[in-house]
Amino acid sequence: MNALTKFPEMTGLDQLKAIFDGRADYQGIVQTLKLTPVSAEDGFVVFEGHPDQSVYNPIGSVHGGYAATILDTVMGCAVHSKMKPGQGYTTLELKVAYHKAMTDKSGPVRAEGRVISVGRRAAFAEAKLFDKSGALCATATSTCLVFQL
Amino acid sequence: MNALTKFPEMTGLDQLKAIFDGRADYQGIVQTLKLTPVSAEDGFVVFEGHPDQSVYNPIGSVHGGYAATILDTVMGCAVHSKMKPGQGYTTLELKVAYHKAMTDKSGPVRAEGRVISVGRRAAFAEAKLFDKSGALCATATSTCLVFQL
Amino acid sequence: MNALTKFPEMTGLDQLKAIFDGRADYQGIVQTLKLTPVSAEDGFVVFEGHPDQSVYNPIGSVHGGYAATILDTVMGCAVHSKMKPGQGYTTLELKVAYHKAMTDKSGPVRAEGRVISVGRRAAFAEAKLFDKSGALCATATSTCLVFQL
Amino acid sequence: MNALTKFPEMTGLDQLKAIFDGRADYQGIVQTLKLTPVSAEDGFVVFEGHPDQSVYNPIGSVHGGYAATILDTVMGCAVHSKMKPGQGYTTLELKVAYHKAMTDKSGPVRAEGRVISVGRRAAFAEAKLFDKSGALCATATSTCLVFQL
Repeated sequence: MNALTKFPEMTGLDQLKAIFDGRADYQGIVQTLKLTPVSAEDGFVVFEGHPDQSVYNPIGSVHGGYAATILDTVMGCAVHSKMKPGQGYTTLELKVAYHKAMTDKSGPVRAEGRVISVGRRAAFAEAKLFDKSGALCATATSTCLVFQL
Repeated sequence: MNALTKFPEMTGLDQLKAIFDGRADYQGIVQTLKLTPVSAEDGFVVFEGHPDQSVYNPIGSVHGGYAATILDTVMGCAVHSKMKPGQGYTTLELKVAYHKAMTDKSGPVRAEGRVISVGRRAAFAEAKLFDKSGALCATATSTCLVFQL
Repeated sequence: MNALTKFPEMTGLDQLKAIFDGRADYQGIVQTLKLTPVSAEDGFVVFEGHPDQSVYNPIGSVHGGYAATILDTVMGCAVHSKMKPGQGYTTLELKVAYHKAMTDKSGPVRAEGRVISVGRRAAFAEAKLFDKSGALCATATSTCLVFQL
Repeated sequence: MNALTKFPEMTGLDQLKAIFDGRADYQGIVQTLKLTPVSAEDGFVVFEGHPDQSVYNPIGSVHGGYAATILDTVMGCAVHSKMKPGQGYTTLELKVAYHKAMTDKSGPVRAEGRVISVGRRAAFAEAKLFDKSGALCATATSTCLVFQL
């Protein structure tokens, strides 16, 4: 049981808004890493994060997996927002480019995910991650499979 | 202060072994996501994970960021293991392909990172993630910058 | 009209072998760039190339597009070799890593493409490109969509 | 001898403009595939192409290597345009996403490459490829190494 099958009659955007409003579960890694949804529009989703030492790597900065997780989240949600009732999606691949190291001084960070194109069987998204000063820390692209539930 | 600058006279492989043996810190996201180091050899590093609901996405399976984090970890460590005293590295980009969804029944999962090539200024690594039955769940490739500390 | 629809009753591997044997067309970029098929097995395809100044970039070595083309070819063919009668595929994305520059002295180069996993709706492949001395010049990974024709 | 070392005292942008104006060589794969430079600005380069059957794959459309080549070209040139006298660059990796198949009816196609960020040791670029109707056919991202010649 998940968000997509719990509300099969809703559009993806309405499902997302229900999750963001707390009417459906949004637990899991997003809570574990303290990422918070900011907004969900048609094809464009924003999350915020406050990276601290709990997401560091052993070489003294925020682990690349943190950026990957928040960027994957906003891209997945952006694709989710384009799903029609009865459609599902899954991420096939994700690429993240690291432009600027983040530390526990970087937050609040802001991740913006955007759909580039969505077809009957595949969707593509991109995302950007900015630190509190607006500097670009990471970018990402993703390929998703789209299917009928 | 981090593992690389704390032991500038050590090779990367010796630094890694010190971290894995608990003589140096290995906190951060690896602890937060309960990833555990298994082995570190020259150019080949293994971690294990036990994904549970705390790393789920809202669509009912393990979030793509979990695989990205463990795969980035083993690739980064594999590159780390090839560093000479005085050399550092940073990840420039990471690509993850998702072959099979993971659930809280998939673990223990095993991530293997391997260096493909390492030069004076760049290194490339690849990684594979297997569930407890040995099925391939995700693969990844990464590009790292190598530099003098 | 193309190879896939011209022989709808054949498996992908048989179609590939027909193309390689000259019983079906294999024109296009492969001829333009003088790439030649070497072998097609189940999930594993090899091409050979002889890069010369006609595939150079203006900074004095073989253009990255040359490696991308031969690597995309062997990965696409490797996926093609796994198609059942009536199945088609298309490449969704391709990533190429450049390990060692090639020149007009590097050939014959050998590209090996291999399927990593193939499902009902998606397939993943990887490839390696070696120069005549066996040195690894480039690697690649790819995601393909699989569908019913 | 190449464009970068032939004009070591010039900025990358001036080198590019010299190449585009025909004062320096621009042979190689760009001529073989009949790609033509359109414009070079600071961090932004455009090429045009007229894909025909000579760049097809055997499954009846333009080969993925064609898009990879023109996109790699505009991204490489965009990074080139940011080089200071005495700096060089090389592409470490390239990812291409295929949104819409191209045929010999698609051209003239237009590829736009843009630098996302450039540092002392690495640069990142992105690119888009449009068909004659303005439809998005492919997108790409790339990581380059920057060094002193």
